[in-house]
Amino acid sequence: MSEIPEIPVTTEAAHSPDDLKFMDAALDLARVAAVADEVPVGAVLVKNGEIIARAANSVEQSKDALAHAEMRVLAEGEKIAGDWRLTDCTLYVTKEPCPMCAGAIIHTRLKRVVYGVGDPKAGACGGAVDLLHLPGLNHRFECVKGVREIEAKALLQQFFRAKRAT
Amino acid sequence: MSEIPEIPVTTEAAHSPDDLKFMDAALDLARVAAVADEVPVGAVLVKNGEIIARAANSVEQSKDALAHAEMRVLAEGEKIAGDWRLTDCTLYVTKEPCPMCAGAIIHTRLKRVVYGVGDPKAGACGGAVDLLHLPGLNHRFECVKGVREIEAKALLQQFFRAKRAT
Repeated sequence: MSEIPEIPVTTEAAHSPDDLKFMDAALDLARVAAVADEVPVGAVLVKNGEIIARAANSVEQSKDALAHAEMRVLAEGEKIAGDWRLTDCTLYVTKEPCPMCAGAIIHTRLKRVVYGVGDPKAGACGGAVDLLHLPGLNHRFECVKGVREIEAKALLQQFFRAKRAT
Repeated sequence: MSEIPEIPVTTEAAHSPDDLKFMDAALDLARVAAVADEVPVGAVLVKNGEIIARAANSVEQSKDALAHAEMRVLAEGEKIAGDWRLTDCTLYVTKEPCPMCAGAIIHTRLKRVVYGVGDPKAGACGGAVDLLHLPGLNHRFECVKGVREIEAKALLQQFFRAKRAT
């Protein structure tokens, strides 16, 4: 019998109200990025049911290729926590993290990551590469995908369509 | 005929005087990190034959898990260049970059990376995972390994041996 590929099926109804609410906050930040002519990705960091940090992608504005929404929100979270360990936190981000950001998530020992749309080209949570299950890395995090996927994808498509038209 | 695995053979004599000189500068920074009780990794960024930025790993001092030597030196390089594109630069780092740092190297479009000792547990330039050849990523960089490998490895071994003893 041939192996049946795993097809993740996620519906909005399957996601918790909290996950939807926090992803909506991340989407608001992605829209802030879009207005600033940045690739529209937003992220929030949540601890004990409260948002403790918010960030939009700001690579162009800050002239810093490392200024992805996830990196900015993790750095802010560390400052607030006074510690590089963010073990009790959940990151909500509108797009699947790239290798840089997934690596940073591992280093900060996040408990959980929730993302919107997958990235088959550069996603590091299974999209293009799976860094979550690298045997040598000393931390694992729970990963939930597809929360507000349609909205997150529409924002990115709209952005790149407009870029191609100019 | 079975496939013969590629075995990289590098000797000090095979490395250019410039690569050895700049890695020595990176090793000096790794020693600075060791004195500060940080995992001893150092990095320098070189443009047109000159060091434009230097950094030591400073995760504990700065309470920032993102403060690897490579990330710090890239951020400093961007500030100096006034641009997130570091296309003409070479990064020298004493240890093989992790996924976070290799991702950052791709984002900043570095031309070349030279590292000392490989990291089979978490290295992202072929050690544990190979991010250099991920088809979807839009940038490739040249990678040279094994420059001052013995010195870089000795520093790390000494650090972890001391940690285990305490």
